[in-house]
Amino acid sequence: MAVYTDIADGDLEEFLKAYDLGALLAFKGIAEGVENSNFLLRTEAGNFILTLYEKRVAEADLPFFLGLMQHLAGRGVSCPLPVKARDGVALRRIAGRPAAIISFLEGVWVRRPQISHCAAVGQAVADMHRAGGDFPLRRVNALSLDGWPALFEMSRSRADTVQPGLAGLVEAELEELRRAWPVDLPTGVIHADLFPDNVFFLKERLSGLIDFYFACNDLLAYDLAICLNAWCFEANGEFNVTKGRTLIQAYQSVRPLQPAERDALPVLARGAALRFLLTRLYDWLTVPAGALVTPKDPLEYLRKLRFHQRARNAADYGASS
Amino acid sequence: MAVYTDIADGDLEEFLKAYDLGALLAFKGIAEGVENSNFLLRTEAGNFILTLYEKRVAEADLPFFLGLMQHLAGRGVSCPLPVKARDGVALRRIAGRPAAIISFLEGVWVRRPQISHCAAVGQAVADMHRAGGDFPLRRVNALSLDGWPALFEMSRSRADTVQPGLAGLVEAELEELRRAWPVDLPTGVIHADLFPDNVFFLKERLSGLIDFYFACNDLLAYDLAICLNAWCFEANGEFNVTKGRTLIQAYQSVRPLQPAERDALPVLARGAALRFLLTRLYDWLTVPAGALVTPKDPLEYLRKLRFHQRARNAADYGASS
Repeated sequence: MAVYTDIADGDLEEFLKAYDLGALLAFKGIAEGVENSNFLLRTEAGNFILTLYEKRVAEADLPFFLGLMQHLAGRGVSCPLPVKARDGVALRRIAGRPAAIISFLEGVWVRRPQISHCAAVGQAVADMHRAGGDFPLRRVNALSLDGWPALFEMSRSRADTVQPGLAGLVEAELEELRRAWPVDLPTGVIHADLFPDNVFFLKERLSGLIDFYFACNDLLAYDLAICLNAWCFEANGEFNVTKGRTLIQAYQSVRPLQPAERDALPVLARGAALRFLLTRLYDWLTVPAGALVTPKDPLEYLRKLRFHQRARNAADYGASS
Repeated sequence: MAVYTDIADGDLEEFLKAYDLGALLAFKGIAEGVENSNFLLRTEAGNFILTLYEKRVAEADLPFFLGLMQHLAGRGVSCPLPVKARDGVALRRIAGRPAAIISFLEGVWVRRPQISHCAAVGQAVADMHRAGGDFPLRRVNALSLDGWPALFEMSRSRADTVQPGLAGLVEAELEELRRAWPVDLPTGVIHADLFPDNVFFLKERLSGLIDFYFACNDLLAYDLAICLNAWCFEANGEFNVTKGRTLIQAYQSVRPLQPAERDALPVLARGAALRFLLTRLYDWLTVPAGALVTPKDPLEYLRKLRFHQRARNAADYGASS
């Protein structure tokens, strides 16, 4: 939940003058999104989201993110569409921050995903991978294999305060992933953060994907591995292999996995679990005790990591051989 | 900014079945309102606000608040209107909390009020006082003279950590207000929290009042005194007597003050300043350091209190004699 920057009177009206959106009717901070400040913006032209990009998002990456949304929307992927001002430019500034108006995507995110939702997500991820195939911009994934050691460095000395032995466990895992991480798998644009709160449904149908601010170029199957982590574990920590099978099958109905991608699923899933373990660990140790925003439990991803360490092959995730 | 309670899948759809609002189209937590959880709710019937009443609001008071909004809206005051379900009941339950859907009021609150806004607010407060005249329910103001000592008790031992001598100053002020507080002034339903973020404007016209969750029966002129505190001080701490004159004149254009009310303005303004000093002091001492919600500075109201202590009569606020 986040509104980090407020906007002074007149600034918003002045900002809107660059657009063809008519008069301002309503403006409310939205308690969603951790990285940026988001506002519901209602004008005579309809409902929109105004996003102010805060410090955790690199300004140099914004053309990639906004361009990607526009590219995907143009290829039939339902996602927010950056709204261009009269001069044709979508990325602007307000209140000292880079900012963009994007279209308001209808739908509600699912708090407890069911098998039908996993099927819809699997297909949507593959659709997105296909639609992103000819996107011309590139963005390195700073939160993949090469970035994890530096990320861990920021928490290492205090990791054992969260759970004794955690630092050693992460170190061993980093080493093992460095050794086993696949090379030569198909790459492309991935969402990289497709958790349930970033997927909207309308009456049980997937209505769109949001929040492309971790999108980057990386192994396509790694995106699928992130989804297996995000969508297929039950609240009690168990992996639901029916959900896994459903998600993978739905993905393959659009984009069949190569044998090497299928073989790599366990190690990719380990990497994905470690990635969220590391960012959550950092937030856990950084957000002050008693803050109103409760950081997410990093140990949820330690438990998921342990499942992946025991997985022998893609069949353990439900993939047919 | 607040979303304290999330709502599980299915619960919202089930909840909406009691209403004639069509299918759910969007649902987002709103980063406004400190006391309750507020969500933007969009259905086929339009935009609404879903409010879940959290612990700081007494459930027994909800019929007063919702009934008042309905009463005022029925008398031409622009304010959110509670939406009744098919059974005629507006106050319901969801996620273990009392809850109500209210209409979505268009408009934007003004971050830096100008004189024209003060004029609009003065008139709107008087309109509300007049429209509330025949509202049949009653609610005592727990945050008036009789409640302040108990409120202060919760902060007294730590008050001097905020500013040396603050505890003694508040004690003396409590005693003086107890002595000087007016009796026999006209009473009625007051809003009691009409700060700029609770007043919406559309293209420079006041479009409505929101957040009636401090409304109660009390001295009508005390509501005006709250507005003088909330609208007529500049960012540098100075009282803007032109704004005060404008606000009071606009109020009197609808409801002329009695001489005794005018004479009481300085002491009522002191009381109002003390009331917000005390609640802010409590929040300041209670919200943990580093929390994402920054408590408002209590000393802003100490400075306002000092201005009121020096005021000799209503003319110092711009009231004509």
